[in-house]
This record gives sequence, C-alpha cells and structure tokens, in this order.
Amino acid sequence: MTEIQQEALDKAVETINGDMGALWITIAAVLVFFMQAGFTLVEIGFTRSKNAGNIIMKNIMDLCIGSIMFWAVGYGIMYGSDLVMGGFFRTSPADQGYFFFSASDWYNLFFQTVFCATAATIVSGAVAGRTKFSTYLILSAVLTTLIYPISGSWYWPFDDDAWLNTAGFIDFAGSSVVHAVGGGAALVAAIMVGPRIGKYVDGKAVAIPGHNIPFGAIGVMILWLGWFGFNGGSQLAWGGDDTIAAGSVIINTNLAAAIGAVSALLLTWLKYGKPDVSMTLNGALAGLVGITAGCGAVSAWGALAIGLVCGIMVVLSIEFIDKKLHVDDPVGAISVHGVCGFLGTVLVGVFALDGGLLYGGGASLLWVQTYGSLAYIAWAAFGTFVVLIILKKTIGLRVSKEVEMDGLDIHEHGSEAYPDFRLNSH
Amino acid sequence: MTEIQQEALDKAVETINGDMGALWITIAAVLVFFMQAGFTLVEIGFTRSKNAGNIIMKNIMDLCIGSIMFWAVGYGIMYGSDLVMGGFFRTSPADQGYFFFSASDWYNLFFQTVFCATAATIVSGAVAGRTKFSTYLILSAVLTTLIYPISGSWYWPFDDDAWLNTAGFIDFAGSSVVHAVGGGAALVAAIMVGPRIGKYVDGKAVAIPGHNIPFGAIGVMILWLGWFGFNGGSQLAWGGDDTIAAGSVIINTNLAAAIGAVSALLLTWLKYGKPDVSMTLNGALAGLVGITAGCGAVSAWGALAIGLVCGIMVVLSIEFIDKKLHVDDPVGAISVHGVCGFLGTVLVGVFALDGGLLYGGGASLLWVQTYGSLAYIAWAAFGTFVVLIILKKTIGLRVSKEVEMDGLDIHEHGSEAYPDFRLNSH
Amino acid sequence: MTEIQQEALDKAVETINGDMGALWITIAAVLVFFMQAGFTLVEIGFTRSKNAGNIIMKNIMDLCIGSIMFWAVGYGIMYGSDLVMGGFFRTSPADQGYFFFSASDWYNLFFQTVFCATAATIVSGAVAGRTKFSTYLILSAVLTTLIYPISGSWYWPFDDDAWLNTAGFIDFAGSSVVHAVGGGAALVAAIMVGPRIGKYVDGKAVAIPGHNIPFGAIGVMILWLGWFGFNGGSQLAWGGDDTIAAGSVIINTNLAAAIGAVSALLLTWLKYGKPDVSMTLNGALAGLVGITAGCGAVSAWGALAIGLVCGIMVVLSIEFIDKKLHVDDPVGAISVHGVCGFLGTVLVGVFALDGGLLYGGGASLLWVQTYGSLAYIAWAAFGTFVVLIILKKTIGLRVSKEVEMDGLDIHEHGSEAYPDFRLNSH
Repeated sequence: MTEIQQEALDKAVETINGDMGALWITIAAVLVFFMQAGFTLVEIGFTRSKNAGNIIMKNIMDLCIGSIMFWAVGYGIMYGSDLVMGGFFRTSPADQGYFFFSASDWYNLFFQTVFCATAATIVSGAVAGRTKFSTYLILSAVLTTLIYPISGSWYWPFDDDAWLNTAGFIDFAGSSVVHAVGGGAALVAAIMVGPRIGKYVDGKAVAIPGHNIPFGAIGVMILWLGWFGFNGGSQLAWGGDDTIAAGSVIINTNLAAAIGAVSALLLTWLKYGKPDVSMTLNGALAGLVGITAGCGAVSAWGALAIGLVCGIMVVLSIEFIDKKLHVDDPVGAISVHGVCGFLGTVLVGVFALDGGLLYGGGASLLWVQTYGSLAYIAWAAFGTFVVLIILKKTIGLRVSKEVEMDGLDIHEHGSEAYPDFRLNSH
Repeated sequence: MTEIQQEALDKAVETINGDMGALWITIAAVLVFFMQAGFTLVEIGFTRSKNAGNIIMKNIMDLCIGSIMFWAVGYGIMYGSDLVMGGFFRTSPADQGYFFFSASDWYNLFFQTVFCATAATIVSGAVAGRTKFSTYLILSAVLTTLIYPISGSWYWPFDDDAWLNTAGFIDFAGSSVVHAVGGGAALVAAIMVGPRIGKYVDGKAVAIPGHNIPFGAIGVMILWLGWFGFNGGSQLAWGGDDTIAAGSVIINTNLAAAIGAVSALLLTWLKYGKPDVSMTLNGALAGLVGITAGCGAVSAWGALAIGLVCGIMVVLSIEFIDKKLHVDDPVGAISVHGVCGFLGTVLVGVFALDGGLLYGGGASLLWVQTYGSLAYIAWAAFGTFVVLIILKKTIGLRVSKEVEMDGLDIHEHGSEAYPDFRLNSH
Repeated sequence: MTEIQQEALDKAVETINGDMGALWITIAAVLVFFMQAGFTLVEIGFTRSKNAGNIIMKNIMDLCIGSIMFWAVGYGIMYGSDLVMGGFFRTSPADQGYFFFSASDWYNLFFQTVFCATAATIVSGAVAGRTKFSTYLILSAVLTTLIYPISGSWYWPFDDDAWLNTAGFIDFAGSSVVHAVGGGAALVAAIMVGPRIGKYVDGKAVAIPGHNIPFGAIGVMILWLGWFGFNGGSQLAWGGDDTIAAGSVIINTNLAAAIGAVSALLLTWLKYGKPDVSMTLNGALAGLVGITAGCGAVSAWGALAIGLVCGIMVVLSIEFIDKKLHVDDPVGAISVHGVCGFLGTVLVGVFALDGGLLYGGGASLLWVQTYGSLAYIAWAAFGTFVVLIILKKTIGLRVSKEVEMDGLDIHEHGSEAYPDFRLNSH
C-alpha cells in the first residue's frame, strides 16, 4: 500500500472516530442534562413541601439562564482564543464564534453548557427555604456567566495557557472545576443567607426532615445515571484506546458511588444504631463527586478507596457543618459537593497510577491537587461573596419571616405544590 | 489510488455512516419514548388526584395501541410506496413490508412509532377528568391508525409524491405534523367533551389547581430531555455535516426551551406580580414545540426569537382559551401544542436562513408554512370531530356527573391513586 | 486492489464496528442501570407508605453490593476461563483479570453488572414490608456474588463449556438467566418470610393497596425504557446485520410490552367489569419479561403472541398465587418475573423462526427451553432456600410485629418517608 493510500484510509478512520466521539459526547450531554431533574428531585424531596414550587423554579432557571448566558458569554470566557489579565480569563475576536457561539462543534457547546448549569444548581439546595427568588436568580446568572467560566478557563481548555493545566493539575470531569466551585459558592451563600427559622434553637441544631424521601432517592438515582455521562463523556472521544479509557472511567464511577453509599450506611448504623436513608443516599453522591477528578487516573482499587473516604467524610462533614458550625444546608450540598469535591481532587495525588503518592510519584501531584482545588473553592467563595454583599445592600437576601413560615410557594409564586393533600403542621 | 479502490473505501465509509445514523436514531427514539413518561407526569401533576389512575391508563394505552396499530397499519399509510386518491394517503403491496412492518430498517419504524404515540398523547391532557375511558381509547386508536399517518404522508416521506414536500414546506421534526395535529385534535375534543363540572360558574372561569406540581415539573424536564431525541434524531443521520447539523438542532432546541421558560416567567411576573410555576413550565414546552419545525433551518438567534414568541404567546393563549373561549383544557395542551405548533411552523417563514422573510426570502415560504400548518390543524380537527360525533351518538363522550365528582379512578378503574394519604375536599 | 490493501480496510472497518458495538453496549448498560430506579418506584408505589424508606435502602443496596461483588467475584465465576466441577461454575487464574476485574472490555463488565443487579432487585418486591433489613442485605449479597453468576455461567459465556449453550438453549437477554432466577428466588423468599400481618384473614386474601400508583406507573415506564437496553444491548454488537437484528429485537420488545398491557387490561375488564390499573401495568412488564428470551429469535407476530400469553397469564398467576396459594407477593414479582420468565423461555420453542414447533422445528427446542428454564428456577430456589434457612436459624427473617405494624421506616431506619403529609390509618 502506498503512503497516499494509507493516508486516505487514515483520514477516513479519523473522521469516523471524530463522529463517534461527537455521538458519545452528545449522548453524554443528554445524560448530564437529566441531572437537572435529579438535583430538583433531591432538593424537593429533602426539604419541606411548602417550598417545592420555589425549588422547581430555581432549578429550571439555573438551566434556562445558564443555557442562554453560557452560549452568549460563558463559553467565550472559558474557551476563547486570547488571554485576559495573564490568563485570569479569556476572550476572543467576535468573528471566531466563541461568544454567541457560532462555531461548528455544537455538541461541545452542549456538553459544556450542561456542566455549567450543574455548577449553578448545586447552590440552590444550600439556600433552600428562605432565599428571595429574585436574589437567587441574579446569583445564578453571575455564576453561569462569570464565576464558573472564569475559573473553568484555568484548566479545561487543556492548553498551555491554562495555568493549572501546565502545573499538572488533574481534574478529569470536575470534582473541583464544577463541584467544589458549586460547593464553595454554596458555603458562602448558606452562611450569608443564614439558617432557616427554627433550625437552631438555644444553640442546638433542630432536624427539619424532608417531605418526600422517594423523590430524594429517585433524584439520587438519576444523578448517578447522569454521572456516567458526566465522567464518561469527559473522555471527550470514542474509539480504540478512548473506548477502553471511557469504560474504565464508568466502572470507577460506579464503584465509587457504590462504596460511598455502603460506607455511609455502615457508619450511620454504627453511630446511630440504624442505617440512615438520606445519609446513605448522600454517601452515593459523595462517592460520585469524589471520583469525578480521578476517574481517568486511578484503578478500580483507587476508585473504591476514594469512594470509601468520601462516603465516610460526607457523614462527618454534614454533622460538623450542621451541629458545630451551625451553617444550615438543607440538602448537605456543601459537604457533598464542596468537601468531597476537594477530597476527591486531593486524593488523586495519592491514588493516581501516574504520579500518585502511593505509586511512587512523591508529593508533588498531591501539592498541585491541593492548591488547585483550594483555588477553585476560594474563587467561587469570593465571587459569591461579592455578589451577595451587593444584593444584601440592595434588594436583600431573605424573604420575610411570614413568607418563610407560610412557605415560599404561596407568597413568591402564588401557588401550592400539593393542594389536594392535607398537610401536617408546617 | 485507483478509482476502484476509492470506491471500496467510500462504500465502507458509507456503510459505517449508515450504521452510526441508525445508532443515533435508535437512541433518539428511546429518548422520544421516554416522553410518554413526561406527558403522563405533566397530566397527572396538573390535574386532580382523583383521576391519576385514569390518566395513567390513557397514556399507557396511547403507547400500546399506537405501537401495535402503527406497526400494523399506520406506517404503511404514511410511508407506503403507492398513492391513494392522488396523494391523500398511501398504500403498498403486502409483500413490501410496509403494513405489518417486516422490512429491515426497524430503527426507522421505532423512531416513527414513538412520534405517532406522541401525537395521540397530546389529546389526553385536554380531555382529562371527564371523558369516558372507552371513548378515549377509540379516539386514540383512530388517531394513531389513521388521522396521524394520513396527514403525515403529506410531508414526511420527503419525496416528490408528498404534496407539502414539493410545495417547499419546512417542518423538521413536527411542530405541525405531530404537535399541531395533536393540538387540533385536542381543541375539538375539549370543546365536544365540554368543561369539567365547576370549571365555569356564572360565566367565570374557576381555577382547578393540579395536585402535584413536582410531578408536573419532572414531567416537563423529561419532555425537554426527550426533545433532544425528537429534534436531534430528526436529522435522520450522523457523521460529517450531519453531526454538525444535529448539534445545531440540539442547541437551537435547548435555547428555545430556555427562553420560552424565561419569557413566560417574566410575563407572569409582570402581569400577576408573581412568577408563576406552571406557566413557566408551559413556557419551556411552548419553546420546544415552537422550535420543532425550524430547528434545522434557523440560527441560534432565530431559535431564541421563536422561543421568545412562543413563551409569551402560550401564556396569553392559555388565558384566552380558558377565560374568553371557555374551553376547558386542564393542562394547556391546545395552547402548547396547537397554538405554538402553528406559530413555530409559521415563524420558520420569517427566520429560516434560507428563504425566510428576514433573510431576503420574501413571503413565499411564509405562505407555504401558514397554509401547510393550517392544513394539519384542520385535518386533525375534522378527523377528531367525525370520530367524536359518532361516539357521542353511540357510547357517549362523558362519564356521569357522579363519576366525575368522585373521580374516574374509583368508578372507571375500581382503585385510588393514593389510598394512604388524607385528601382535602375533592 | 491488492489483497493486503483489502485487509487493511477490513481491519479498520472491524475496529470501528467493535467501537460502535462498545458504544451501543455502554449506552444500553446505562439504560439497564436506570431500571433500578424503575424497580424502586414500582415497589414503593405498590406498597404502603410506611415502608418506602426501607424499600429505597434495599434497592440501592442491591445495586451497590452487586456492583462491588460482581466486579470482585461474580464476573470471574460467570465468565472465567476455567471450569469448576465439570462446568457447575467457573474460575480463572488471578492474572487474567476476571476476578477484581482488570481486563480492557470495561463496557462489558458494566453491561453484565447491571444485569446482575437486576436479578437481585426482583426479590425485593416479593418480601416487602416484613423482612429484616440485615437479612435482606445478606441474601442480596449471596445472590449477586454466587447464585446469579453460577447459573449464568451455564449459558451466557456462549462457548462450548456452557452446557445449556451446547444443548441449544435460547435465552437472548435473560427471561430465565435473569428474570426466572429472580422469580425463583422471590418465590422461596416470599414463602419462607411469610405473609404480611393482615394479608390473610380467616383463610381469605385481603387486598393491601399500594400508596402511590403514579410512582408505580412511572416505574413501569422506566422499566420499559430500560428494556430497550436490556434486550437491544444483548445483541452485543452494532453495524451491518447487527444493526438490523438489534432493531428487530427492539420492535419485538415494544410490541410484546404493548400487547401484554392491552391483554391484561381487557382480561380485567372482562373479569371485574373495570380495567385495572396495576394489572395493566403488570401486563406490560409481563410482556417485557416474556419476550426477553426470544426477542432475537421470533418475528413481530411471535412477539405479539408471546406478549399476549404473558399479559393474560400474569393476571391469572397473580390471583392464583395470592388467593389460592396464599403466598404474599406485594408487587407480583413471582408472577411477572418467575412465571412469565418461564413462559417466555418455553414459548421460544414454539415461535422461534429457526427450530420452533410452529415453524417445523419439532419439539426438541421446546424440550431444551423447558428443562433449561426449570434448571434456572430450581437453582435459584435452592440457593435462596439454603441462605434463608441459615438466616432463619441465626438472625431471623422477619421484623417483630410491632415494627411491621408501625412500618419498617421508623424502626429500621429511624425516619419517615413523608413527614409533611397526614396519613390515613396504617
């Protein structure tokens, strides 16, 4: 076979592999899109029925605002061709199609858009039940337009201009880029908005149970499902070695979730005498968030180790944040996404087959992972603080006491979620 | 490379692209199938709890009857090789495998079957809460066996025998072929069945709130998800330019849904002082229905414009149909699918990059889009009228007053949807 | 074109087809994974609200334990390279990567893992509402680690060492390998655990209605959706003839489900005067379980025949098992998965285009199908009996009467599923 002929075949194969990759990314994006339904169900299920409509509105708007703003602005800030302020974020000439996206790799925009919406949605759960709807919308818009894309540009263009990429940082699908950013924003927002009325009485944390645990459970299952797209799709290709790699990523994701749930179940069984339902569900999510950074870099054993640590730590973290710090986070978003996002990123420095502490790589990767993840959390916390301090001085962060007691659904939206059913006292 | 060798490579590439296309269509069909769950949840959630079981039965039967009848008869009427009555519908010799489908492109039958079931299901919501189950089943069967396939044959075989295709009509995934047909049928059915008892008192419309808004919201999210298959799969191919086109279709779909929800939210906020939950959800659906015709023909800007118009018009239309026309449509199906299906089809004549009014194409496309869409609506309305007038004279359309007041679940199906929960007065 | 050049092209095409197959199997596995949410919703919806949290925990743990144990042990027992005890099960040298899976076809492990979890989950519904959580966990672990993989090895490696494969047994996607195994285990478990308190009074069966029929219905729709992956993915390849075959499998699956629901609806309408909601839903599942063995071997007509038989038999079987045998199976799992799994397997011997009784193949296939399916049921029943007899003598099978009356959620897990809602008497 002459060289030219081989070239023709190679080119055909390359084109087909590109198309297969685009197909996989598109399907993965659809799965990640579905995570919005999962987040909504988790937040509805784990909070009171009087706020269900408001939660729906927040989650739908995260997706709507995020879809429009990331298309218009966010993608260009994150992936644009030119650096601004030495790489703090990016921009691009208008005719290149990064802003008001008009390039041809639409599947890529789709995949990145649903990731962006995910980051915003994480905050929603942490401020449920007392935040003004208009305030929430503005925070969500800034998150999807600026905060997430700016810090995303530090790593995910995977080029020499992304400072965390050149530093050797590893965050395959976004334990830090997505989840710790959402968790850092959630932490600051939950603190600044303050706890729900009746959450802390005489210095003690009062449990406010969710109203529909099956909703929460199905939400977690949908999130788990979507995570196969979230992590598997982040291979960003299909065919040959990419097929093997994506498969390994998916198995790692599944094992970490599984052991996360098992370890949270066992820990609560030991601690309280009974295996706790919502902690077990959060354990699965903790394993998923934790493995997101390293799913392409560790073995199945490493995935099990990371899932185990996260499943245990999420239980301890939720208790610590609630009972010691007295920060009211109705769904445990800070612990699941922030703490386990950080832990999962750092643990790549321990378990990475290439460069991990346990595999003879020394401490250098561990160090990069640590400061990289902290940079994401700090940035998201800072950005959220700036937005909320401005909003606090202007339109305010919280609804009135009356609105909170009656439920946001009636006052903010003029409707009830379950008018047919008799409710116990609110 | 000699010509023969290039041919061998081209043939291999063509085969593979065909298989990739079949894979995409199959997955898209699975997503569209899931829309049945979305429709069911929307209709359950936005109506009273006493009819939930009946709604489940109607939606499941749409799918079951549609799957069998479209395989047996509908596909042949829609895609058969021979014209009947100058192209009014189609037929085919028995050995060609169109009737009682036995050809080899099963993925194509699957994709078309789930579209057919969608058209039927649209009607269900508009007649919820007072229609006899047996009556509904017969209407659903005629819709999937005859009404939808007949008018479908006018365009979707995409050949010279399809009169709307030769006229230059553009309806990429079925704003008219599917949704306006469902909406036209829904309009006639809602009028002929009449309003629910208590819906119009002293000439005033009384709001009958849904019983489970989270069900409705998750249903809308599932529909949104399924729409990526509905519109994206309608590219009917994958690979090369088709990959780019399908990606653009998906982004257009997502942007239209997003701005549809945002615009409905803002309009209700302005009109009522509060952003309305169910109107916002319907705004997303309106954007989805509206962009379905033009998603392959407009830019992202066009998609945003169409979604904006539909998000606003669905609110105004639901109010007009309810408060002025006094047609009782419990879930807003006529407005979402009929009005926005029509609007979305017509607006292709304005925003199509090739032939649209705004892009120098003049008014000719606008004209084709208008009369094409009206033909679909008129045909569906006429067919539904014929079916229901016969049923009215024979088995009747409505349940008795007692059955309606107690709920269809108890009388028509001998069961309750939520026996464990105390209910407020029905 | 010289021979060598053709070889290069053939090799490239083969590689691409392998990658397309892996993509299809991966997506199919994601769909099968989602069936866990379907099973959970069906079991929650069709039982009392006081046990919803416990049901969530059981279903999540089936998945978690199954994922870990099948990766560690089950896959090696089922697919290992060496026979043990003349083919009773398999094993493999540690370095081959079957145990603690470390080969490269991860997508295959993923697909097999979610099948294994499905088999375990079937049991959950049959023992709902009275089984100790710890007892359930141990049974689930043995099912996924040993019982399912051992009998799975008899057929699914599809090699000469699998005795049912060499015997000519046909079970495309597991009517017997998965469903009848689950059903056989469910039968023994339901008998040994005994009926719920109040289920049989004075020798008569008392109906205990489910608490959330919409949950059950959405669960069935999710299962139906997942079945396209379950059956379609079992083609284990994509491209060329495999594309056609997988498409036919999907249509057969859909038609059998559709007619299963329709026939159950009509039978209950005839028998009770009203079309029954939960029986209709079970009819769809019956059709799905029934067609799972033969979906790759029968025509669409055969699929309709099998679905029809299963849709009718599931109604009669549920009644017989409840009212005559007095075995308490809250969700009908024994009938849906056991009886229809057996029937579906046997009916392949009647309707298989190649070897079926109706197609001139004589009775030999019918005979293989019968004893093969019975072997699966007997093995699962035996294995479950051994596990439960040991557990009965040690930690016990049932919760106390007080726990059962109050609900397992409060006592076993310390929480309620719906604290906001008032409940009717438990």
